[in-house]
Amino acid sequence: MSDNKRLLLISNSSQYGRGYLDHTEEELRSFLGGVKRVLFVPYALKDQDQYERIAAARLAQMGYALESIHRAPDARKAAESAEAIFIGGGNTFRLLKTLYEQRLLDVIRRRAEDGMPYIGSSAGTVVACPTMKTTNDMPIVEPPSLNALGLVAFQINAHYIDPDPNSTHMGETREVRLREFHEENETPVVGIREGSMLRVEKGTTVLKGTTGAKIFRRGETPIEIPPRAVVDPFAESRSK
Amino acid sequence: MSDNKRLLLISNSSQYGRGYLDHTEEELRSFLGGVKRVLFVPYALKDQDQYERIAAARLAQMGYALESIHRAPDARKAAESAEAIFIGGGNTFRLLKTLYEQRLLDVIRRRAEDGMPYIGSSAGTVVACPTMKTTNDMPIVEPPSLNALGLVAFQINAHYIDPDPNSTHMGETREVRLREFHEENETPVVGIREGSMLRVEKGTTVLKGTTGAKIFRRGETPIEIPPRAVVDPFAESRSK
Repeated sequence: MSDNKRLLLISNSSQYGRGYLDHTEEELRSFLGGVKRVLFVPYALKDQDQYERIAAARLAQMGYALESIHRAPDARKAAESAEAIFIGGGNTFRLLKTLYEQRLLDVIRRRAEDGMPYIGSSAGTVVACPTMKTTNDMPIVEPPSLNALGLVAFQINAHYIDPDPNSTHMGETREVRLREFHEENETPVVGIREGSMLRVEKGTTVLKGTTGAKIFRRGETPIEIPPRAVVDPFAESRSK
Repeated sequence: MSDNKRLLLISNSSQYGRGYLDHTEEELRSFLGGVKRVLFVPYALKDQDQYERIAAARLAQMGYALESIHRAPDARKAAESAEAIFIGGGNTFRLLKTLYEQRLLDVIRRRAEDGMPYIGSSAGTVVACPTMKTTNDMPIVEPPSLNALGLVAFQINAHYIDPDPNSTHMGETREVRLREFHEENETPVVGIREGSMLRVEKGTTVLKGTTGAKIFRRGETPIEIPPRAVVDPFAESRSK
């Protein structure tokens, strides 16, 4: 079975000390190639006009035109005809709720499965997963379901952060939260650190960026993944 | 209208460098007074037997007997006849989902409104609010609704943590998350730091513990609350 999906799933759009999307520019250009026009989905932030301005200015610097879906007279039609799509970060609950309200999930899923380039950042990366159950966000609104696009078969935790050995805070570390996820769910999770992204093409997932990632599987010791490695969260465990 | 509710809403059950519930012991004793037997709700953790053992041993040290609701043949009846209730921390989504599955929300709400002492810690504190929309937890399971007990009219953020000025992490700070909450909701939020708790009696909420709290209201600068202060998140803004 051929797999036409082309996905670029970014952990974070802003890296410490750098400008919006700067650390992703090389990968974005190589991923988008000859694309002229990108459909932007700003639903994860409240101020969609401002979000559009920032994203449009940054993409213009790279030579891409941006159209924001929140201005389209018919959001579904805009997704239907988009050359490529970029779903920006923010609050994942707000993003997914709006995708449901606009009845966009099936259209985006089908277009991505047919090969339309899909770029997600942070919340936009999490909604590419089977569910949004590995988000870090606060549930400020209630989507009708936590089920998401399912463009990849595994879960992603964006902004993955290692435990701080000097912390005195007693709230759960990210690793503890993901262990709790696996108390209730079977699906493997790829925790991508800020500065990392996953590029999915021809059915293969490759880790891009400089900071590495970690694979979490139920009942197993997490596995560190170096930059440029092929990522296969369903492979036979290497820790057994 | 008389308000019989008696609530002790704890930010965290374990404080850095101290044992389980140690930093709450004095307040717990004063709050429970002559109570002999506490009904424990361990639903926020996966291993309920172990959670029961830890809580029972700690309460026994203070002279209180503990019965865990997960062993009761009829959970609703156990709540109906409880002398006092203690809902422990863990994952708030898992806790609320189980409270719904066991059809416990109405019973606990009514008993607490009638004056049964209610102790919550972390997740157990958050479910005392109108909704669980100010949790820090990962949505590892999907409760039928985010609506919770509503024993207080405001929201609480447990384990509240101030922004770290040295952080290079780009994920949202707690303050940013609460600002996002207020982009979508009107209800004031009390962020109680680890080491703090709220005691509600005769319609008055007092901040206990040593570390203080912060009140967040939509569109206003957050207000710092010192230990021992009366907390009124709905009072006319002091920042205007």
